[in-house]
Amino acid sequence: MKIICTRQNLVQGVSTSQRGVSAKSPMPILSGILLSAKGNTLTLEATDLEMGIQCTIPCNVQEEGSIVLPAKYFGEIVRRLPDSPIQIESAEGENAIIHYGQSEIAINGFSADEFPVFSNPQGNTSFTMPEEELKEYLRQVLFATSSDENRPVFTGILLEISNGILRLVATDTHRLALREENLSNDLEDISVIIPGKALNELSRVIGDPDKNITISIGDNQVIFIMEDTKLISRLIEGQFPNYRQVIPQGYKTRIKLKTKEFFESVERASLLARVGTQVVRLAIEEDKVIISANTEVGRIHEEVPCYLSGETMQIAFNALYLIDALRSIGGESIHIDMSGPLSPGILRTVDSANYLSLVLPVRTS
Amino acid sequence: MKIICTRQNLVQGVSTSQRGVSAKSPMPILSGILLSAKGNTLTLEATDLEMGIQCTIPCNVQEEGSIVLPAKYFGEIVRRLPDSPIQIESAEGENAIIHYGQSEIAINGFSADEFPVFSNPQGNTSFTMPEEELKEYLRQVLFATSSDENRPVFTGILLEISNGILRLVATDTHRLALREENLSNDLEDISVIIPGKALNELSRVIGDPDKNITISIGDNQVIFIMEDTKLISRLIEGQFPNYRQVIPQGYKTRIKLKTKEFFESVERASLLARVGTQVVRLAIEEDKVIISANTEVGRIHEEVPCYLSGETMQIAFNALYLIDALRSIGGESIHIDMSGPLSPGILRTVDSANYLSLVLPVRTS
Repeated sequence: MKIICTRQNLVQGVSTSQRGVSAKSPMPILSGILLSAKGNTLTLEATDLEMGIQCTIPCNVQEEGSIVLPAKYFGEIVRRLPDSPIQIESAEGENAIIHYGQSEIAINGFSADEFPVFSNPQGNTSFTMPEEELKEYLRQVLFATSSDENRPVFTGILLEISNGILRLVATDTHRLALREENLSNDLEDISVIIPGKALNELSRVIGDPDKNITISIGDNQVIFIMEDTKLISRLIEGQFPNYRQVIPQGYKTRIKLKTKEFFESVERASLLARVGTQVVRLAIEEDKVIISANTEVGRIHEEVPCYLSGETMQIAFNALYLIDALRSIGGESIHIDMSGPLSPGILRTVDSANYLSLVLPVRTS
Repeated sequence: MKIICTRQNLVQGVSTSQRGVSAKSPMPILSGILLSAKGNTLTLEATDLEMGIQCTIPCNVQEEGSIVLPAKYFGEIVRRLPDSPIQIESAEGENAIIHYGQSEIAINGFSADEFPVFSNPQGNTSFTMPEEELKEYLRQVLFATSSDENRPVFTGILLEISNGILRLVATDTHRLALREENLSNDLEDISVIIPGKALNELSRVIGDPDKNITISIGDNQVIFIMEDTKLISRLIEGQFPNYRQVIPQGYKTRIKLKTKEFFESVERASLLARVGTQVVRLAIEEDKVIISANTEVGRIHEEVPCYLSGETMQIAFNALYLIDALRSIGGESIHIDMSGPLSPGILRTVDSANYLSLVLPVRTS
């Protein structure tokens, strides 16, 4: 392999593909990035066997070939190279020489033959949307996934298409986030669970307002196709909980309040609440919500104006769950619907019916 | 105590005084900030008994008095308060109520009586300089202090005034940094060792190009007096090594090279060198320095043009020490003077004789 490329392209390719590298894999070769030079592109790819990222950059290929280089060192070196043409040459196939200016770095790697093949499945269902939109949807649901690997279903996001509506749902059993959107094209109904980890990495590489992303879903894999980058992930097997059953219909108490004001109050309350159980209490009155917490450090009493429909009530939440939900909801004003101190609170923006977030209350007696 | 002040002033006062709080003190009260309201100011102070910081902010004092509040919680709360007038009230003297808008936070603290008195010594020697200048001097020497508390002298900075010249010197025995500057006023000769930790905190609160700082040195304490802030530190007892003896006179090899270019090369070499012993080798030739490192990860060979006076030679350094020295030196071009592979390298900027940095070589055979 022998190629010449710009530092900028190389940095971009390495930074993106590096997201696919396994942090602690038992297979040393998986700590590497596979570089393959062909035609007039260099493809960089990495995988942890659950997820893979593949990125192509333009380059001048003087000799086709491939090699695997350790992602950590290769990445750090590339980011510190001077802004001059970079030549990467691999003679024996297990180490590469990076030439720049009068200098060179030889870096030991692995033979490309040992690198697991990056499968490139054809999806049965495909649809396209702006990168920016998907990024925003993911931001609104990812926080509600669980990190408990013993219950894999909750570490993923349910992607459901039903009657032309796309729904993304996440829950860790204490809270739930649901985003839905009409798809412009007609698609077959489908329901799959995509690992939160893969979507987290995806959300870090997308977001260009001028670019689209295609999501293609196969039998056990999903592939996200961007301009120069592909991200493939296995799907999580199992049954996602019936989220419709969890979301109460109707309410006994509905309040409308300013998102930012409420968020800042809860955030202050959580500063005190965190030394205890992170419990903040809400007393919902005619025209205000009283937010309070009481711990050994001190106590807080905040008042936020609200409009009430229905009954006054008292309820307690985990402050961190409320903060996550409020941070993700956006919008100037929100509704919170409740049906008693032991039923979940449902947060929705006043402007839009496309998103809701559910938080279970904390029993305090 | 009862005061009203702006959020902005309170945040500034808390953030500055908080730097004096002991991270892990056996005395719980030392995790707090003493607030004292008198006249039309609120004084905030904290100390770990080695160092203290005192900060005054303007406020409307409705009732004089004082209280100690836990720095961590008080700081986090204050930073998250809304931008409205803040009232702090302490009735019983062991807890305070912070009022803002319709809300309030009660925070448990300590009686001010138990807080160690902040001594306010008169210095024997005083001089004044622009904050910005002192900040730059400190940046240039602080990196060379040791963090080994078993040898306190090396954790400090020598401040020496001799024949009207101010010198700041730091060494951890592997490297040394020396900054000197003419003082405009005539002062008695003096030589004290100031803890690096206190100067580190000081350098974080100074830097305003329009403000001056007065340094006042007493028998066992130094006090830094800024506009609204004072920092007091004990001095370190002991004998600072004779730095003059360590700095070689003359050289056998002098090279002149571009600071940035050399810095970036050494930085790349250190990426590879860090898996081993952090040793980078310099081969000094007629018109270039060859920088190389060789480890199990790979090897690097960089060439940086230089002007040589004297003999060609080979020498090895700890890459991290070279990087620290090069990051602190400033200036477009530097000289490095050497007298053999076992003698220190002396780095100076080409433009100025006021700063030098010394790095001991590494024996490689």
